[in-house]
Amino acid sequence: MEESSLLPPVVLVHRPPALDFIDEHLSRHSFTALYTHTSLEDSLQDFLSSHAASVRAVVSLGRLPIPAEFISNLPSLEIVVCASVGFDHVDLDECRRRGVVITNAGDAYGEDVADLAVGLLISVIRRIAAVDRYVRSGQWTRLWDYPLGFKLNRKKVGIVGLGSIGSLVAKRLEPFGCIISYNSRNPKPDVPYAYYSNILSLAADNDFLILCCSLTDETHHIVNREVMETLGKNGVIINIGRGGLIDEKEMVKCLVNGVIWGVGLDVFENEPEVPEELFGLENVVLSPHAAGMTAESLNNISEVAIANLKAFFADQPLMFTVQLD
Amino acid sequence: MEESSLLPPVVLVHRPPALDFIDEHLSRHSFTALYTHTSLEDSLQDFLSSHAASVRAVVSLGRLPIPAEFISNLPSLEIVVCASVGFDHVDLDECRRRGVVITNAGDAYGEDVADLAVGLLISVIRRIAAVDRYVRSGQWTRLWDYPLGFKLNRKKVGIVGLGSIGSLVAKRLEPFGCIISYNSRNPKPDVPYAYYSNILSLAADNDFLILCCSLTDETHHIVNREVMETLGKNGVIINIGRGGLIDEKEMVKCLVNGVIWGVGLDVFENEPEVPEELFGLENVVLSPHAAGMTAESLNNISEVAIANLKAFFADQPLMFTVQLD
Repeated sequence: MEESSLLPPVVLVHRPPALDFIDEHLSRHSFTALYTHTSLEDSLQDFLSSHAASVRAVVSLGRLPIPAEFISNLPSLEIVVCASVGFDHVDLDECRRRGVVITNAGDAYGEDVADLAVGLLISVIRRIAAVDRYVRSGQWTRLWDYPLGFKLNRKKVGIVGLGSIGSLVAKRLEPFGCIISYNSRNPKPDVPYAYYSNILSLAADNDFLILCCSLTDETHHIVNREVMETLGKNGVIINIGRGGLIDEKEMVKCLVNGVIWGVGLDVFENEPEVPEELFGLENVVLSPHAAGMTAESLNNISEVAIANLKAFFADQPLMFTVQLD
Repeated sequence: MEESSLLPPVVLVHRPPALDFIDEHLSRHSFTALYTHTSLEDSLQDFLSSHAASVRAVVSLGRLPIPAEFISNLPSLEIVVCASVGFDHVDLDECRRRGVVITNAGDAYGEDVADLAVGLLISVIRRIAAVDRYVRSGQWTRLWDYPLGFKLNRKKVGIVGLGSIGSLVAKRLEPFGCIISYNSRNPKPDVPYAYYSNILSLAADNDFLILCCSLTDETHHIVNREVMETLGKNGVIINIGRGGLIDEKEMVKCLVNGVIWGVGLDVFENEPEVPEELFGLENVVLSPHAAGMTAESLNNISEVAIANLKAFFADQPLMFTVQLD
């Protein structure tokens, strides 16, 4: 024990091949890094078995699953550092049972996610991606035959979930002249926006809905057919929360049949699967769960992850520890 | 004269076929409307000659040219109502000589143009149109192989031309955490942003440039190769002013060679011609001079145009009269 603590701790990085932004940070500090993706051709099981005893930390990027079996193959595992806000891809029960600590990315992505929410909203109602396709196709003539967009000014925007990200979205939309209201479990003190206790009345009184809440049993399919019918044919929905917040099958029908006007989606129910019916629609903007993915944020997150690893092995306090009970 | 003033004034609408938003407004009021586009197959000259004597007003939409020859074919013409902010498609010398009054759309489009400027900026730096193409192509897998965007927070944004639209853009970008500065002929009083007396020093100190000024002899090609080299390889330019503000040929080279990072363009030097080299670039978002084109704004503009026509023929004061000297 004394001897092993003098050796550089072995960190297992579990990530998709392209997400290499943390590698340089790890090599700059005194960690021995192993990578699961370099052996994706072999079975992950074999890889884990041969390195199992030495691994004291896992760094998780890109939300690749870390099930109980993965964890139980690593008898020396003490900490899982998630470079993501979400940590539902990790088997929390097994971590709790084993006493494995989990940290996440805290609010590192908040501003970027809020920026993308606004970007998706403007892109949908002003048809930015659609007119970009139109101009690139060489079709632009003096005939003005591209579809018109809608105005943002004076539009009523209902935010579902006024947490840190929802509040950043609201703050950004104010100078566009949008009228903000929100739905959450309870009214927030010191918030200047109208509160709605349920999403149906929020949909009834608003032009656009922006989904910023987390996915729980209560919020699963919170946007169902009734909500979309209530929002109505000029309604737009932006989802930067989680795919499961919307009943995706019903949403596709509502878009095809004009029950709502359009959507901007960064998240989907069954990622990376996207309903193919959406690919041909002009009133839809699609983003591959990239709301937090900027070069600067990934760098920040790498620094948080490294700081947490160093703190952990030096018995110092951690940032963004996930409470497991 | 007495008799003709009792008849409904004849209004000649000069517009592209698809821009029909004002027709209903004209028919609801007591105007006799003639349309040049219905006879585009014949020569415009013939059309004008056969209706010439009766036409007392022209409504101009879509910036179709109104040269001296057009005006001199209409001996009874008294007013040209432009449903656009720009009026450089009308021969101003001929109007001045004839005493023909011109009105424009005032600031009817300002908010929409500012909204699109912000939408283009977020679309370029967060690659919204590019990732939309990526997801639609069915390529999205867990490999995270799409290109990363950049953060808006703490970025320095230089606004070229802090008039009404530039100010609306600045106001919208503040809550994104952008640091605003500007260039204009003279410093503006009561403005909280840093002033730069020339565009080169503005480019040197900023990450992004947003072009919001009008096109004059002084601002023609204000963004030349030197400005782009000074802005640098992470620089982004958004143009919602006029195409001629940028040396377009040099801009294409700078984009292809990575001298600047990307552009978002609503306007081009030789519209509707767009340099074909842009069609294949991923760091570019293209819009067909549509910054002011929302359903609501077109309706507002129609109402302004009708109000001006009614006021003119009732000898009442006009809105947004263009000063011709």
